[in-house]
Amino acid sequence: MKIHTQIKNDCYKADGFIGEYQKLVRDVVIPYQYSVLNDELPDIEKSHVIDNFRNAAAAIRGEDTKDGFYGMVFQDSDAGKWIEAAAYSLQNYPDENLEKTVDDFVDIIADAQEEDGYLNTYFTIKDKEKRWTNLLEAHELYSAGHLIEAACAYYEATGKRKFLDVMTKNVKHIHNRFVKENTEGFPGHPEIELALMKLYRITKDEDCLELCRKFIDTRGVNADFYKLEKEKRNWTVWGNNAEDNNYQQSGMPVRKMDKATGHAVRAVYLYTGMADMASETDDKELFTACERLWQDITERKMYITGAIGSTVHGEAFSTDFDLPSDTAYAETCASIGLMFFASRMLENDVDRKYSDVMERAFYNTVLAGMQLDGKRFFYVNPLEVVPGISGVIATHRHARPQRPGWYGCACCPPNVARLITSFGKYAYGENKNTAFCHLYASGKIELSNGIKFTCETRYPYGFAVTYKIEKGGKMAIRIPAWSENYTVIHNKRLIKPKMTKGYIYIDVADNDTLIIILDDSIRTNYASTKVHDLTGKVALSRGPLVYCFEGVDNDNDVLSIALKKNGKAYVAQNDNLPCDSIAISIPAVRKSDCDGLYSFSPLAENDCNAVAVPYYIWGNRGENQMRVWMEEA
Amino acid sequence: MKIHTQIKNDCYKADGFIGEYQKLVRDVVIPYQYSVLNDELPDIEKSHVIDNFRNAAAAIRGEDTKDGFYGMVFQDSDAGKWIEAAAYSLQNYPDENLEKTVDDFVDIIADAQEEDGYLNTYFTIKDKEKRWTNLLEAHELYSAGHLIEAACAYYEATGKRKFLDVMTKNVKHIHNRFVKENTEGFPGHPEIELALMKLYRITKDEDCLELCRKFIDTRGVNADFYKLEKEKRNWTVWGNNAEDNNYQQSGMPVRKMDKATGHAVRAVYLYTGMADMASETDDKELFTACERLWQDITERKMYITGAIGSTVHGEAFSTDFDLPSDTAYAETCASIGLMFFASRMLENDVDRKYSDVMERAFYNTVLAGMQLDGKRFFYVNPLEVVPGISGVIATHRHARPQRPGWYGCACCPPNVARLITSFGKYAYGENKNTAFCHLYASGKIELSNGIKFTCETRYPYGFAVTYKIEKGGKMAIRIPAWSENYTVIHNKRLIKPKMTKGYIYIDVADNDTLIIILDDSIRTNYASTKVHDLTGKVALSRGPLVYCFEGVDNDNDVLSIALKKNGKAYVAQNDNLPCDSIAISIPAVRKSDCDGLYSFSPLAENDCNAVAVPYYIWGNRGENQMRVWMEEA
Repeated sequence: MKIHTQIKNDCYKADGFIGEYQKLVRDVVIPYQYSVLNDELPDIEKSHVIDNFRNAAAAIRGEDTKDGFYGMVFQDSDAGKWIEAAAYSLQNYPDENLEKTVDDFVDIIADAQEEDGYLNTYFTIKDKEKRWTNLLEAHELYSAGHLIEAACAYYEATGKRKFLDVMTKNVKHIHNRFVKENTEGFPGHPEIELALMKLYRITKDEDCLELCRKFIDTRGVNADFYKLEKEKRNWTVWGNNAEDNNYQQSGMPVRKMDKATGHAVRAVYLYTGMADMASETDDKELFTACERLWQDITERKMYITGAIGSTVHGEAFSTDFDLPSDTAYAETCASIGLMFFASRMLENDVDRKYSDVMERAFYNTVLAGMQLDGKRFFYVNPLEVVPGISGVIATHRHARPQRPGWYGCACCPPNVARLITSFGKYAYGENKNTAFCHLYASGKIELSNGIKFTCETRYPYGFAVTYKIEKGGKMAIRIPAWSENYTVIHNKRLIKPKMTKGYIYIDVADNDTLIIILDDSIRTNYASTKVHDLTGKVALSRGPLVYCFEGVDNDNDVLSIALKKNGKAYVAQNDNLPCDSIAISIPAVRKSDCDGLYSFSPLAENDCNAVAVPYYIWGNRGENQMRVWMEEA
Repeated sequence: MKIHTQIKNDCYKADGFIGEYQKLVRDVVIPYQYSVLNDELPDIEKSHVIDNFRNAAAAIRGEDTKDGFYGMVFQDSDAGKWIEAAAYSLQNYPDENLEKTVDDFVDIIADAQEEDGYLNTYFTIKDKEKRWTNLLEAHELYSAGHLIEAACAYYEATGKRKFLDVMTKNVKHIHNRFVKENTEGFPGHPEIELALMKLYRITKDEDCLELCRKFIDTRGVNADFYKLEKEKRNWTVWGNNAEDNNYQQSGMPVRKMDKATGHAVRAVYLYTGMADMASETDDKELFTACERLWQDITERKMYITGAIGSTVHGEAFSTDFDLPSDTAYAETCASIGLMFFASRMLENDVDRKYSDVMERAFYNTVLAGMQLDGKRFFYVNPLEVVPGISGVIATHRHARPQRPGWYGCACCPPNVARLITSFGKYAYGENKNTAFCHLYASGKIELSNGIKFTCETRYPYGFAVTYKIEKGGKMAIRIPAWSENYTVIHNKRLIKPKMTKGYIYIDVADNDTLIIILDDSIRTNYASTKVHDLTGKVALSRGPLVYCFEGVDNDNDVLSIALKKNGKAYVAQNDNLPCDSIAISIPAVRKSDCDGLYSFSPLAENDCNAVAVPYYIWGNRGENQMRVWMEEA
């Protein structure tokens, strides 16, 4: 059911916590990433993204550019994600220079489009004949998807049609192949589905919807598709196993799926597209499939930090309840994709079970993905780090104890950038007469339905949220499940509004004030006994923030700490932390090490106070031990 | 220092616990393994070991046998290990048919020896030109080592010289190459070192000692040796990384080593050879290196079960204190190798720190390696198993929840067989006037120094050990470190003999009786806080046996059980167990699962009795959860 729609990004002007992050992305991340794409930085692996487009244009002009491609087969997608981030940022903070840079970039991309609408630098430069012969590995539809998303964002930001027209022409080319000519096929890496839905909402071009439906409804119908494709082609990118239908979500029609499997980013991008189409076309069967997949992820396969994809093998979902802390893969992009999926589920059904997870993923894994200075990024977000093991030994090599710089495969950094710069689309929603407040996000909100208000809050560190209404209407505000106790004050009057699926609905008039006070207590979290890695362990959280224990705050040793059962935790100043963030102090015992590797003597215990900090800031103060789940004494 | 020597295998005639195991090997394991080697079983991967020797003989006769080799490059070693097991078994239980089978096998092997003494079916059949060009991977010296060990055992068992002569000729060939011609090189997989020491003790041929010294003392001196070897050859077996000096223990002279690294079996076989040569030649520097390596393994890299080599990557030692229970590699052969190493350290220094570990490895990992019916084997011995994860998902695929049958790489099964059939060599030792009792092993002991006695005990389930002396002398009996309390009764008189390095020394006369009563209490074990996988956990043991909890005894769910702190454990009858073995019952709580994946509510706890069984019998009653290290409530 189409319940409401995502707002346009410029409906929300952030300040506060989100505003600071958006400024960081504007000031540091976007300029830095552009220099990378343009190969301006000497000491990091070259990206060549922009040069790839230039060389593709040269190839179209007939110049010899056989060696002109560099990078991953999906290198073009970095252009899409960066432009998308830049476009959203331009809406938040107009910037002529940045806009000029994007315009020039769009010109370069436009020149790389072939006469027939085809647009992919890898094939245009290297081998035109191989176009569309390797949907399994070659990411043509994936890269197109990211460029479509960028074109939509840039059009929304500037009203400039050029990029939108380029990508519309590209979609016509793809539609021609897969719909008009009815060529069998669907994306190895889903992404274009959700992009086509974005383009459809802007252009209302039915071809977009038709093409999206084709990809969604033919996926997995022929479970041998990739196998047969592989038999026909005589080349490979990585030698992917064409029969691993779990990895690539291609073993059954999507409407029948009930288990999240395989590569986690691919999975949630696919589910996002499915949920998108379900809401747009009121497709209940498709939505029901999405509900099953949502339930499978969030009730059996999700870390407390909102991370998903627990195994490095295939960057994939593992089996139910296999959620190891130290060897977690937990890719930043997968949690971003989980936010996408959540936001599209909200378009079908306003239920806090979606927004709660969206918030969990954002404030923990997604933010942890970026260093506080915006300069370094995690792909992998473990919940336990032991220097000497993490990032070093083979089983833990992926789980680095410190954020590295730019990667050869640069998917996560620009993904974080575009997510943060478009935060309003996740925080707020609207339909004809209602403003939906899915997340607490400080700033000014001006919806196209006329409702207008400011939101003032120090969230996630403050738990009072004040809405000052300029133009009234109906407010639908999520109360998180973690806040069983909460107070609502409407114009200084305590009220008890009705709650439906975790949202309170309140009619507000012009100049009203609405204050929500949430539960600020520190909570102890327990895990299902089915999670073999977490038996007997507890984790702390406060509001949406999951906390972790780092060596730097705990005498360089968190392994020997056990939290006291029923110990009273309290918030604590910690001058050692970045401004605004708040630590937790909790009574604990420090165990003395035994004499030797094993001992018959119980380890001596001494009382101590253990200090926890928000998970998302871990690894910002040097390499040290880190643990989310702690023993209880 | 040469302190004493291993006894000949026929000095000990087992009964009781060890006797039952030796009978099982005689009745089931040895015949079964011979059928495998001779490709008589239809439903398992063919071994081809015997056919390889036949085909090598044919190749020597000039027949075309290019396709006549099958199996691993070290396939010949299976012949060595099987014959060695059979030889020891013949000493325990004379058997004309088995002896005839071995004689015929020896004839086949002898025919496969080339004129110059070379003996390796892989190269004789496939490509003579490649001999000795790939010490890194080709296992020529490794396979020779196992055949030498077999020849020594068979000579000791039967007095027949044929096999001994074949292998002496083979050693001459190798000595010629590596000593006389002084060709650079040392074994990729150590093993021949300890074999040469065995042969030397029988033949007193100084070439054996000289060759062993060459391999030990040139190892790692040129750290680039394998790299240079690889550059010279134009073929490979597996594409091993020639520069991974950690994996193959080739990065520094062995006398300088202080960290156990790399492939665990290779490592402990090497250290065994080093300790062997140290005792034989009174080489204090070499022994000191062995002491450092011993300490590194047992104080930082050993599971409570005496398993070593914690990572599947390279079947190798991981870094210090990285001892994961669920992804443990913990190869059966590595624990057998650790017993070898311990037994050779005892030849340098009679200290229970060696015999305690030897016992820990045997009664836990080595015995667990074999199904109770002798028909199936574990290579990998995890300390935690969760069906659906263990043996299934990529990170845990090696850690199977059930013993599989024969493997393509069949190293462990015959290794277990030869260890059990030669148990006397580990349990007892002798020098001029002393009988060393390293392990408690029921049966008759008749040493070449004249001391003669019987040992009566139900160990490891009974804790009284009675020595009835027939011919007296000095008894040196180890009191395990786990038995702080013990009683010694000499001819009905309580005595308090002096203890030196964990051994009590008692002069006994003919017809004396000596009774040792050990501590039979159930002990709770704690691990160092440095072991990140074991924080807050405890394990139970009684005597040498480490216990584990299996689903079959605990309502199919051990993950939700936490043992009560200070709960009084007691031994318990358990009709569900194989005869003789004893279960432990311990007060515990069973946690109720929470509603959902995570919860703010502490998990409800209900009192229960949890049942533990000896680790070595796990996985004999169907696939189910298993855990050694438990939470404490």
